[in-house]
Amino acid sequence: MASTAPVVRHARREDVPAILGLIRELADYEHALDSVEATEETLAATIAFAPSDSSVVSPSPETGLPITEPVSPSKPARCLVLTDPESGVVVGMALYFYNYSTWRARPGIFLEDLYVKQSERKKGYGKRLLVELAKEVEAMKGGRLEWNVLKWNEPSIKFYESEAIGAQMMSEWVGMRVDGEGLPKLAKLLD
Amino acid sequence: MASTAPVVRHARREDVPAILGLIRELADYEHALDSVEATEETLAATIAFAPSDSSVVSPSPETGLPITEPVSPSKPARCLVLTDPESGVVVGMALYFYNYSTWRARPGIFLEDLYVKQSERKKGYGKRLLVELAKEVEAMKGGRLEWNVLKWNEPSIKFYESEAIGAQMMSEWVGMRVDGEGLPKLAKLLD
Repeated sequence: MASTAPVVRHARREDVPAILGLIRELADYEHALDSVEATEETLAATIAFAPSDSSVVSPSPETGLPITEPVSPSKPARCLVLTDPESGVVVGMALYFYNYSTWRARPGIFLEDLYVKQSERKKGYGKRLLVELAKEVEAMKGGRLEWNVLKWNEPSIKFYESEAIGAQMMSEWVGMRVDGEGLPKLAKLLD
Repeated sequence: MASTAPVVRHARREDVPAILGLIRELADYEHALDSVEATEETLAATIAFAPSDSSVVSPSPETGLPITEPVSPSKPARCLVLTDPESGVVVGMALYFYNYSTWRARPGIFLEDLYVKQSERKKGYGKRLLVELAKEVEAMKGGRLEWNVLKWNEPSIKFYESEAIGAQMMSEWVGMRVDGEGLPKLAKLLD
């Protein structure tokens, strides 16, 4: 029996319900389902999609670069989906945007969410998605592929730090965030 | 004697030498001057600049949104500069790009580098730059203003967590990074 490799391609608009389903599963795993405010409408408005025309293959097999709507400050995200080779169902995703390293003066990719359905684990799908992102960083002559992980998520950290993936933990840095009520407060601070 | 407020505006191409100077000062402060690979040429190619025509004011006083070249995956960064009110010299900067929150399905701003010249500290310039970024997040209906800080940099953390700035430390998360030789290795992992 020939095994068929999963397909990884950029999300099309019609993948939005599947993407929202994966976002909700991931939030649930992170004990934060209540924090999901995303809806099909807001996702559709903020992700740069590949054309629905399935004859367009994105990323481009020639350049390795995405073929999607343009990214912009209000639509900064791109999303790779991984589909089951037999059913065509979306079982994993990598939602990402473009970051920048000042020291290198080079762009890169920040992976905001990587998720593979619980039922589809141990098939190398997460690795496949990370490899696709590394390929895009290479194709764009970028400098870094980065993401965050919850400190208690030891299985993921072990995977990311493995010889195969080769990620380094940025232990000397910590993130700061202003959101919610804090944003208008800070914006008006000097008025 | 009337005190004059500093001007904060988006960087123009002719600000590149000043920006590189600030990047090098900041790297030196972070004990990492050797890590600066940025040159005037690479900065000029990767930052979305405001027009050199000084009659164009960016951010727009009407919308609060930047007026610069378009941002794109290969040119993802925008840069605010703060100039001394008397000399017009660039003494501070906030270099940033656009991030994305999947849970909120909203874009936001990630501040990659905030720096004010040592000789110009204690004048509220860092606060002024953070306020300008919060204003842009508000103007774009974004969800978050985020940045990273070195854990040993206690004075900065204290400032960011102060009542005025109102940032929260994202202590439960840690960053992961693949760069350098690791990128082509990961990209070729499944070939």
